[in-house]
Amino acid sequence: MAAVTQRSVKDRQVWYFGGGDADGDGTMKDVLGGKGAGLAEMDRIGLPVPAGFTISTGVCGYVTAHRGKYPPRLDMLVAKAMKRVEKEMGAKFGDRKNPLLVSVRSGAKISMPGMMDTVLNLGLNDVTVEGLAARSKDPRFAWDCYRRFVQMFGDVVLGMKPASSQVRDPFELLLEAKKHERGVELDSALTVDDLKALVATFKAEIKARTGKSFPENPVKQLWAAIGAVFASANTERAIVYRRLNRIPSDLGTAVNICSMVYGNMGENSGTGVAFTRDPSSGDPAFYGEYLLNAQGEDVVAGTRTPRPISELAAEMPKVYAQLDRVRKILEKRYRDMQDVEFTIQRGKLWMLQTRTGKRTGFAAVRIAVDMVNEKLITDQAALLRIDPESLNQLLRPVFDGNEKKSALDAGRLLGKGLPAGPGAACGRITFSAEDALERKRRGEEVILVRIETSPEDIEGMNAALGILTSRGGTTSHAALVGRQMGKVCVVGCGELAIDYAAGTLAGSGHVLKAGDFLSIDGNTGEVIAGAIATRPSEVHRVVIEKSLPAAESPTYQSYAKLLGWADKHRRMRVRANADQGDQCDNAVAFGAEGVGLCRTEHMFFGAGKIEHVQQMILAATAEERKAALAKLLPIQRADFVAIFKAMAGRPVTVRTLDPPLHEFLPHTEKDQQELGATLGVDWQKIAAKVAELHEFNPMLGFRGCRLGIVYPEITEMQARAIFEAACEVKAAGGAVNPEVMIPLVGTLKEFRLQAAVVRRVAVEVMKERGARFSYLVGTMIEVPRAALTAGEIAGEAEFFSYGTNDLTQTAMGLSRDDSGRFLEPYLKQEIYAFDPFQSLDVKGVGQLVAMATASGRAVKPNLKIGICGEHGGDPASIQFFHETGLDYVSCSPFRLPIARVAAAQAALREKSALQRTAGTRSVKRKAAKGRR
Amino acid sequence: MAAVTQRSVKDRQVWYFGGGDADGDGTMKDVLGGKGAGLAEMDRIGLPVPAGFTISTGVCGYVTAHRGKYPPRLDMLVAKAMKRVEKEMGAKFGDRKNPLLVSVRSGAKISMPGMMDTVLNLGLNDVTVEGLAARSKDPRFAWDCYRRFVQMFGDVVLGMKPASSQVRDPFELLLEAKKHERGVELDSALTVDDLKALVATFKAEIKARTGKSFPENPVKQLWAAIGAVFASANTERAIVYRRLNRIPSDLGTAVNICSMVYGNMGENSGTGVAFTRDPSSGDPAFYGEYLLNAQGEDVVAGTRTPRPISELAAEMPKVYAQLDRVRKILEKRYRDMQDVEFTIQRGKLWMLQTRTGKRTGFAAVRIAVDMVNEKLITDQAALLRIDPESLNQLLRPVFDGNEKKSALDAGRLLGKGLPAGPGAACGRITFSAEDALERKRRGEEVILVRIETSPEDIEGMNAALGILTSRGGTTSHAALVGRQMGKVCVVGCGELAIDYAAGTLAGSGHVLKAGDFLSIDGNTGEVIAGAIATRPSEVHRVVIEKSLPAAESPTYQSYAKLLGWADKHRRMRVRANADQGDQCDNAVAFGAEGVGLCRTEHMFFGAGKIEHVQQMILAATAEERKAALAKLLPIQRADFVAIFKAMAGRPVTVRTLDPPLHEFLPHTEKDQQELGATLGVDWQKIAAKVAELHEFNPMLGFRGCRLGIVYPEITEMQARAIFEAACEVKAAGGAVNPEVMIPLVGTLKEFRLQAAVVRRVAVEVMKERGARFSYLVGTMIEVPRAALTAGEIAGEAEFFSYGTNDLTQTAMGLSRDDSGRFLEPYLKQEIYAFDPFQSLDVKGVGQLVAMATASGRAVKPNLKIGICGEHGGDPASIQFFHETGLDYVSCSPFRLPIARVAAAQAALREKSALQRTAGTRSVKRKAAKGRR
Repeated sequence: MAAVTQRSVKDRQVWYFGGGDADGDGTMKDVLGGKGAGLAEMDRIGLPVPAGFTISTGVCGYVTAHRGKYPPRLDMLVAKAMKRVEKEMGAKFGDRKNPLLVSVRSGAKISMPGMMDTVLNLGLNDVTVEGLAARSKDPRFAWDCYRRFVQMFGDVVLGMKPASSQVRDPFELLLEAKKHERGVELDSALTVDDLKALVATFKAEIKARTGKSFPENPVKQLWAAIGAVFASANTERAIVYRRLNRIPSDLGTAVNICSMVYGNMGENSGTGVAFTRDPSSGDPAFYGEYLLNAQGEDVVAGTRTPRPISELAAEMPKVYAQLDRVRKILEKRYRDMQDVEFTIQRGKLWMLQTRTGKRTGFAAVRIAVDMVNEKLITDQAALLRIDPESLNQLLRPVFDGNEKKSALDAGRLLGKGLPAGPGAACGRITFSAEDALERKRRGEEVILVRIETSPEDIEGMNAALGILTSRGGTTSHAALVGRQMGKVCVVGCGELAIDYAAGTLAGSGHVLKAGDFLSIDGNTGEVIAGAIATRPSEVHRVVIEKSLPAAESPTYQSYAKLLGWADKHRRMRVRANADQGDQCDNAVAFGAEGVGLCRTEHMFFGAGKIEHVQQMILAATAEERKAALAKLLPIQRADFVAIFKAMAGRPVTVRTLDPPLHEFLPHTEKDQQELGATLGVDWQKIAAKVAELHEFNPMLGFRGCRLGIVYPEITEMQARAIFEAACEVKAAGGAVNPEVMIPLVGTLKEFRLQAAVVRRVAVEVMKERGARFSYLVGTMIEVPRAALTAGEIAGEAEFFSYGTNDLTQTAMGLSRDDSGRFLEPYLKQEIYAFDPFQSLDVKGVGQLVAMATASGRAVKPNLKIGICGEHGGDPASIQFFHETGLDYVSCSPFRLPIARVAAAQAALREKSALQRTAGTRSVKRKAAKGRR
Repeated sequence: MAAVTQRSVKDRQVWYFGGGDADGDGTMKDVLGGKGAGLAEMDRIGLPVPAGFTISTGVCGYVTAHRGKYPPRLDMLVAKAMKRVEKEMGAKFGDRKNPLLVSVRSGAKISMPGMMDTVLNLGLNDVTVEGLAARSKDPRFAWDCYRRFVQMFGDVVLGMKPASSQVRDPFELLLEAKKHERGVELDSALTVDDLKALVATFKAEIKARTGKSFPENPVKQLWAAIGAVFASANTERAIVYRRLNRIPSDLGTAVNICSMVYGNMGENSGTGVAFTRDPSSGDPAFYGEYLLNAQGEDVVAGTRTPRPISELAAEMPKVYAQLDRVRKILEKRYRDMQDVEFTIQRGKLWMLQTRTGKRTGFAAVRIAVDMVNEKLITDQAALLRIDPESLNQLLRPVFDGNEKKSALDAGRLLGKGLPAGPGAACGRITFSAEDALERKRRGEEVILVRIETSPEDIEGMNAALGILTSRGGTTSHAALVGRQMGKVCVVGCGELAIDYAAGTLAGSGHVLKAGDFLSIDGNTGEVIAGAIATRPSEVHRVVIEKSLPAAESPTYQSYAKLLGWADKHRRMRVRANADQGDQCDNAVAFGAEGVGLCRTEHMFFGAGKIEHVQQMILAATAEERKAALAKLLPIQRADFVAIFKAMAGRPVTVRTLDPPLHEFLPHTEKDQQELGATLGVDWQKIAAKVAELHEFNPMLGFRGCRLGIVYPEITEMQARAIFEAACEVKAAGGAVNPEVMIPLVGTLKEFRLQAAVVRRVAVEVMKERGARFSYLVGTMIEVPRAALTAGEIAGEAEFFSYGTNDLTQTAMGLSRDDSGRFLEPYLKQEIYAFDPFQSLDVKGVGQLVAMATASGRAVKPNLKIGICGEHGGDPASIQFFHETGLDYVSCSPFRLPIARVAAAQAALREKSALQRTAGTRSVKRKAAKGRR
């Protein structure tokens, strides 16, 4: 292999494996695909692999680019490889006496289970089947293979498998008819003659449905199968899978042609799948299942119940011991948990596949940490291996698996929405914030069910265990606030009909009322009628509830170890978006190094607060407004005191009032009348104010610093509350580090005017209280104009924080709340590679972030720059923010572990890229030396 | 002067003039201000100017920068200049026998009439007044001067003049009290003793109100007055005036100290103001008025009626002849119409001021063209002199001046909104589009009065003569569509209460009903109860109505000549935003070289059309949708046929469907029920659809190409209508040049998918019809992401057109329809220098335009680039588009003459800048030669 240059690796089209003589190896997934690389590697390290060859992914690219045409010499190369396989296996493809049969399977670089199709037993025809029968001395086996092959060929290669799983497979119908005719239940009860008749019927069906005969020529069979595999790389479900898993759409697939071995050659044969460690818990024990006298599909089909792998030790001790050795060799080789397929043919073990095994978040953390302890990998490798998103599973309550399954089996699924806040929640249905509060007061656990939520629902959301909406995306108000609060949250479940007036929730034929039990799964989006028991996660009990000692939770210990490594390796700081003292406590428990976004308006809601806000808005004069603000001042101050105390000297970025004022007023006549009575104001005055404040596009309207510019007294009150709180905490011996942030700035002048108010108040408060504290005044960069003129703004702002939610909305002209109607078709047609509100649009919005960072730092080299949009908790976005040189990311408290690991991964990737560059340089240096 | 270097010009602080020996000249407005430069120039060319000196604008800058402190040597320089003035005038400042009195007046580079304040007769005190009385032999005159001076000093220098015009001046009250006490009516009836008593009372008032005594020392008076002038440059009204007139806010002012001359020294004295040509019509006759035995303020005050200047010829023939000579000398010197002030002191003429005179649009065009004919200026200079905006006046109907005045005098003004569509309109009030149509059918002329308009009002707007709204800015829907239709339009008149239910319009105590007459002035924003006669402009009658032969309209001839020159000099093409054949006819008449924006959705409204659109929206399946679209196809095709015919082979850019679909459905229950009955659909289905289509931020929602991506059949139908129409017109021997434009593109993929539909349909239609036509497919650039990725998009798009309305909304995060609430305070606080929807925000939004143009052209050097937002008709924006290298601007038909002149001005400015650079280079070349 050392002689094979990079160039020839990329160009080589056919790669042989078998007999320990593989052309490729396990590192060559790009070229061989995952399956091909695994087979080559296993062959290379001496594991028993049936001989075969791999057609490279490059050929797939060629075929796609040339509209189905193959490279000119490919047929010759395939024929040559087949000769070598025949030699190794001692059988001949298409031979009437000793026929070599092959499987044809796809294998992309990144495994896409079930997405690509497989054809087994290829090479059989009316002649070779007799040869197989003779050699195996088992005509029933031979004809069963043939029957299966014709069916698979029809389904997969000729495309006869119905696209919808609702439609029955034509061959299955014929098979059933035959069993019915013969009066038997199991396939195995069919005789050789039955199977012969079925093969004939299948072939007739193929002719009738496709107009073409089943090809008896094995070479024709082979090429048809290869073509079908390449085509399957571009089926809609493959495209959808790639999109969902963010796999580049031009990756293509390799094709693996592998000699058949048989697990169905009697009771000394068998087949199985296994994981080198438990993929669910991470327990380092062999884990898997097998069936004797069976082919791979039987394990999956579920007609027979497979047995746990441990039983094989008793049944076939030699084979089991060999398998256990393979397991250890593979883990050492791959330094990761492997998912393997094997077949035992008449007592001989054959390895058919190895690949990195999928695992739960629990297992991922456990395995990574265990492998570091076992010195298989470094802590850096362990970090890079974790999907940060999967850490969520360690933090969230979960449903009891059996209870949930039986609920689903009982048809209690109402619908499926978007999983927006992970975890499982079960509680009583409530349709309003007030009712949620009332029920909470009575000690009930509730799920708040709304068509959509708005800021006035915040207290109700806080009181609820889970939040369910029928409208809105994963970054809708409900999702944003829910996540920040750590609530279980399912949004945009459009199948549900929510009727506030009737007080009902309907879906899939069920109609539930307020007070009925409902269970929602924030990991899957499932909405299920009735109660399902949940339990808090171990990590949650250790970190938040403190009801479980750390020493008693192995899960927590692995988690803590991993996070410790992350903190050691990351460059970027992590902060939390939090608005209340208790949220700050959670944030600190999850590792927050500061608050990146404290939304002051969230403090405005709640009895005893909102009235003053409403009075402020209804004020006819600046004096009335100031009087209302004066009442708010002590309330806000108390909130800031709690926050500063919780954050104990860590930086706290407080954003001045941002949302449009109408969000604070009631919108229905009834609520307006009630408020009028409470405030002693004519309700029609309130209605008039709401009408006056109505906006066509509130997102682009009278909000953000525009409020503070028109009503500077609001900013003034907020600054005073912040700074007085700072004095109070300092006076009590605490440390404070306030950063005041002006939202929606588009021009330097806006920032200048608002910063002047804040700085003036700071001076006043220091003077009044005889105190000193340091503070910063900075700005959000959340409209394109701010990014475009960031250099100018940096001249006066002390920090930037990207509000990537609004920056995405404005830069893309895309309303977060309204994009639902076309986001799905946009993702399907790959116009967007992913939801730009979940993961930053690097090419567009990212350009503004990079531009503003560069021009801001050009003016002020040490300008502190962070990001506080939802993207602050998204690993792919965090990678970009690291590359762009940001100082910190801020996200909801429950996403902090994810952010910490993602930030560490970004730093490690940068480090290894630097090392690669340095390596190349040193190689070049040596080469240059050699030339001298 | 030749010896005065640039450096010393900038630094010199005090500039003398008088006796033909002025330090400065008329070119030095930057340094001397307009007034000072005029005085210096007049002095230089031998006109009689009272001696004086000017303190430069640089000193104002110094004073502002140093918080009121003067440059160190200024007092010495002023004293020196005063000596020279004393010598020239033969009197001494502060002398008890022969006192020199001076006026102190401000003078900025750009004249701001009435914005800065003036102090006359400075130098008088209890001693010098007696000297003046003795020398003039007129004690009453002396004491009247003194009385006036003390009053002015108190008002202007000490700031005692009330800020509000609603509050009476304290000195005027005392003067009135005195007249009352003496039982006289006129000031002139007061005796010397009365005046003496008044001076004492005035001084006491000053002492009482300011705590300081009136300064008797003339030098102290002088410095106090100078300080007050500098301060007046930063009063709010000066700031507002600069903002409204887009004058840079750091321009500062000069101070002119000029010896007093007196028009109130008897019947051989007098004073007057005059224009060298008629500023209203442009007629080249001397125009002005004068008063004998009066000071300047008397002419303005209106207590005596001034007499036309022609009468001076009879009354003082020598002086008149001298004045007429001065007039000719000044016009030759300045090559422009001048506005002069003069005083006759005992038979001697003194010139006090000359400046370029303000004029109406009519006069501007006439004077410019006349002066070219008179060979005073070139056609290029004539073009550069026209304020393009003022051309509006030539195109619009006007109110009869006398009738309007008497209506206002009668208190019929209801309120004042924003002038959004120029001209004057009078008609019957109607509150709905249907009623407007119905009344129009009956032959009535109507004004459509709406709180705001929406696309469903379009037919009603079209039927109306004028449009009035109480909400929305100058680029609201009403304003945009109104302007494009050429309607007279007043928007955002918030003082009005419009009650649809009661059918009333109320304001200023009037309540009008539907059917009542209303007059609106789109030049001023005035809304007036009752009828005022209007008449169409001459140009309109020639160009559009064709009811007046061109030869009979001198106004039209000047207009045509000027526009001809503009077309000769401009580089950029001009196109019109037009959606109907008749609009296109108007566009061509006003010089359109193509249609830059045809909004297809405007064609969707109207009986026989809208139903199909509604059916399309309500369709449950693609089939139903296609059926509805099939009915729309012939309608759209017919519209395009009319447009292509009218444009006769000029390029026509058609935008595919853009607005959110809910705009096509009725929003009230009643209208939904009606529609349900019409379509035979359950009205609740319609209501449900409207609810489903509701969006929080429709501007950022399901609109633009997003509609065409989700429903490609809509784009397909529209493309088919365009191309079939093209075939039809070609078949009839016409020429066509269609350009299909995809709106709201943010990613290349969106454009690619939509362009593919359009191109496929083009091929199909050509094949079906056996025809060939060339066409382009391009895109709007109207969201920042499109601008940021323009290079990529340019790879596949054949043209770009900036939609600067939406680009401004998204780049600034600023809703056009909602910005009203804070736009005014933003302009007042100079956060925005101007409304960014009227004139492009070059620094922010312009950066995106420049960036996209550069990266688009980098990929496709000949990429055709235009702009079709409202800014396409704004002269300042047109200047920027020219500089950025755009190929064309597109605006509403009635703004085309403005765009043509503005585009020519931009080209001429570029040319003169190039010539300047070339000049500098040739000077440098010569210098370099010299060195060799």
